[in-house]
Amino acid sequence: MHRVKVRVVEDALDANNTIARANRDDFDRHGVTVVNLMSAPGAGKTALLERALHELPGVRAGVLEGDVQGSYDADRLASLHVPVTQINTDPGFGGECHLDANMVRSAVPALPLEELDLLVIENVGNLVCPAEFRVGEDARIMVSSVTEGEDKPLKYPLMFRTCELVLVNKVDLLPHLDFDLERFLRNLDAVHPGVPHMLVSARTGEGVEAWRDWLAALPARREERVGFR
Amino acid sequence: MHRVKVRVVEDALDANNTIARANRDDFDRHGVTVVNLMSAPGAGKTALLERALHELPGVRAGVLEGDVQGSYDADRLASLHVPVTQINTDPGFGGECHLDANMVRSAVPALPLEELDLLVIENVGNLVCPAEFRVGEDARIMVSSVTEGEDKPLKYPLMFRTCELVLVNKVDLLPHLDFDLERFLRNLDAVHPGVPHMLVSARTGEGVEAWRDWLAALPARREERVGFR
Repeated sequence: MHRVKVRVVEDALDANNTIARANRDDFDRHGVTVVNLMSAPGAGKTALLERALHELPGVRAGVLEGDVQGSYDADRLASLHVPVTQINTDPGFGGECHLDANMVRSAVPALPLEELDLLVIENVGNLVCPAEFRVGEDARIMVSSVTEGEDKPLKYPLMFRTCELVLVNKVDLLPHLDFDLERFLRNLDAVHPGVPHMLVSARTGEGVEAWRDWLAALPARREERVGFR
Repeated sequence: MHRVKVRVVEDALDANNTIARANRDDFDRHGVTVVNLMSAPGAGKTALLERALHELPGVRAGVLEGDVQGSYDADRLASLHVPVTQINTDPGFGGECHLDANMVRSAVPALPLEELDLLVIENVGNLVCPAEFRVGEDARIMVSSVTEGEDKPLKYPLMFRTCELVLVNKVDLLPHLDFDLERFLRNLDAVHPGVPHMLVSARTGEGVEAWRDWLAALPARREERVGFR
């Protein structure tokens, strides 16, 4: 019974990877660099995007918003005057807890790829399943809020292990928390040795310039580096 | 294709409900009241449990811990001297993002049901799928941290709609956040009119007495009320 389940899951992930590669081909053909932005609910993905996409230097950016229901984040981003496309994962039952390659595939015709250098896909807020499903991205960025505690890398290792950058958000709250930053960074290093991280606050703007620069440089890095993926 | 998927999901939920009823029968036979405790990662489920189970008046409590990996929360609860049983959801692939009835069923033989009045099942940190899977509980409690923002009831409506109590945690941080409590409560009321809520802080202890009393009274309420479930 258990082995059958594992087999079914592996087949589903195989199918997902095939569709993810088709997405990649479409993105490549248009020269669009794609970021998969992931976090727990309320960690600050949208707020950090608002900060970064406001005056992102020399890069034409767009956003694909993934939510179970509604378009609250897309509405927030509307003032930035970048193209925003919404996917909802709820048709049929209580809602998917992640984006998969096929959901992104269904949105590709609605994306103005020829007008973009960079597409940020904001995933559903969840630290488990989004990490299991590639959607055709070049890079994965995850946001971990200091309010969530130091143990999160140990409890959700796949998510922390498969990302290229960790944004440690809400550092303005550190004086009001018992959060041990050194311990968090040790836990992060234990599951993903050497992964870069940035301390940021979407609220105060601390660290936002470095995050914006990292994002703005991504399309050029993708062109330059062999084996970037 | 989509209809086939919906059908498969519905069949899976049917199977889950059948097993959940078997769990309920076992819990009923032993007179154990069962709570399903849910939240996003890092919202404070374990910290609030530590607070409540420390000197829970007149009730013999136990905990079933659900995590993707590790036993960090179970280790934290060990000092409370209540029986704690661990379920990990990771065998086979990246990890299930929720507990289902069958996982709880597999833990039932390890639970000292004859010694318990109350069993708290701490679910995997996730605002989507845990709400879709009944595990045999009498009541659902969800924890929503004020650091997560006011929009969470609108973005994860099933979770907020299917619980009997909402613990609004980390209220000690309110002076340091832009969180609009009235707006959060309006959003909560929009998706689940009349659901009780408590403002609490696991850090300072604010509101913890009311939460502990609610939990301690649950087994008696279950006995008294017809149609409690």
